[in-house]
Amino acid sequence: MYKYKLTLAYDGTNFCGWQVQPSGVSIQYLIQEALGILFKKPTSLTGSGRTDAGVHALGQVAHCTADHTVDLVKLRFSLNGLLPKEIRVLHIELVPDTFHARYSALSKIYRYHLHTDQVMLPFKRLYSVQVHHPLDINQLKEASLAFIGTHDFTTFANEPSKGSAAKNPVRTIMRIDITQELGGLYVEFEGTGFLYKMVRNIIGTLLDVCSGKLAIEDIPKLFEAKDRRIAGQAAPARGLFLVKVNYPDF
Amino acid sequence: MYKYKLTLAYDGTNFCGWQVQPSGVSIQYLIQEALGILFKKPTSLTGSGRTDAGVHALGQVAHCTADHTVDLVKLRFSLNGLLPKEIRVLHIELVPDTFHARYSALSKIYRYHLHTDQVMLPFKRLYSVQVHHPLDINQLKEASLAFIGTHDFTTFANEPSKGSAAKNPVRTIMRIDITQELGGLYVEFEGTGFLYKMVRNIIGTLLDVCSGKLAIEDIPKLFEAKDRRIAGQAAPARGLFLVKVNYPDF
Repeated sequence: MYKYKLTLAYDGTNFCGWQVQPSGVSIQYLIQEALGILFKKPTSLTGSGRTDAGVHALGQVAHCTADHTVDLVKLRFSLNGLLPKEIRVLHIELVPDTFHARYSALSKIYRYHLHTDQVMLPFKRLYSVQVHHPLDINQLKEASLAFIGTHDFTTFANEPSKGSAAKNPVRTIMRIDITQELGGLYVEFEGTGFLYKMVRNIIGTLLDVCSGKLAIEDIPKLFEAKDRRIAGQAAPARGLFLVKVNYPDF
Repeated sequence: MYKYKLTLAYDGTNFCGWQVQPSGVSIQYLIQEALGILFKKPTSLTGSGRTDAGVHALGQVAHCTADHTVDLVKLRFSLNGLLPKEIRVLHIELVPDTFHARYSALSKIYRYHLHTDQVMLPFKRLYSVQVHHPLDINQLKEASLAFIGTHDFTTFANEPSKGSAAKNPVRTIMRIDITQELGGLYVEFEGTGFLYKMVRNIIGTLLDVCSGKLAIEDIPKLFEAKDRRIAGQAAPARGLFLVKVNYPDF
């Protein structure tokens, strides 16, 4: 058996998310179908984690296994030929059998794009979310500090509608960086893992601070309450990108 | 009478171009319709020039006149409410009656985006064109020098299918800059004006140099021949952006 690691980019706009669902077309489904055609047998693909409907990826990682080896550049070319242009296989490599896209991951990097100009640029409308109140970058940076480190993120995690919530709600965020870009900024998170809707809920809470609905000093109380209902609303999916999944050298 | 100057951005993917056409939905048509509703009478909009089907704009400029003044921020807000999200009015100002979007323009800036990575990113698929052979930036820069300055650009201009070709095919390109970006590069042109398909034909010719089909030394001969048939094919519309139109202070 040979194990393949795939690095993927996708525009999540028109999909029901990463994971195969009874209704809607998922990214995992389309790639599995294409792999099944090329490997001539049903092939299952394991992602580093799910991304929700409308969430994008610049570097999602997934693995699959097959009985035989193939030319990796040709395999990438053939997969991209079978897939819609919204989904691209960026890179394929062979990895040892011990590699697992989800369990081997050391950290993940997500970015959330906020548009602060008064008019949303047409080219960003599917990849960024407009903020209708002023954003003070220093305030945003200061508020983000409350989320760095190891915390019980129960307050900032939704119950998934399918499947069970993570048993352990403790996660570590190593860094949160804020970078200005044309028309706005993006907030980049690196963490050991993220609970369901965690990044979007944190962004919603940060925006509540910037709009004056919440004081920075109250964020620790939100953590302590362990109650999803008291934190900010989840920010929309379209602003979120899974940028990179980091693994140890294999 | 009051004269309004509008600065516009649009994603040209789904339109038949700037100019009103018998078939297809044009950007000019949609904005004119919206202006007609808000000014309560048919209003015609004059652009700095046409952009072709599929060409995008970050800073197209157009003017219209109306009998009365209105709050400019409210007008922008109302226009954007009536327009599809692919078209945005970025800015509106009142200008003297002597201002003309086309005839007052001092120069125009266009960008053409080329994707040089082996796999096209999903987010750039509508805004950039993939090049399937290696691009040597130094060679591209050297070849671009042949187009800077004042030339008869007949060889690099198509006959428009509607309307008449410009009587005078002499144009001045002040600068051509090449800038690297994620996955590729863009070529930026600033000129006094551009003939029909001129930027796309120049890009096609530059790509012929990079692929080895044409020698840099032969570009002056293409200019001398004044024959559209001998230069490179027009590069696709989706890579092209009208970035800015420069005017004297009014």
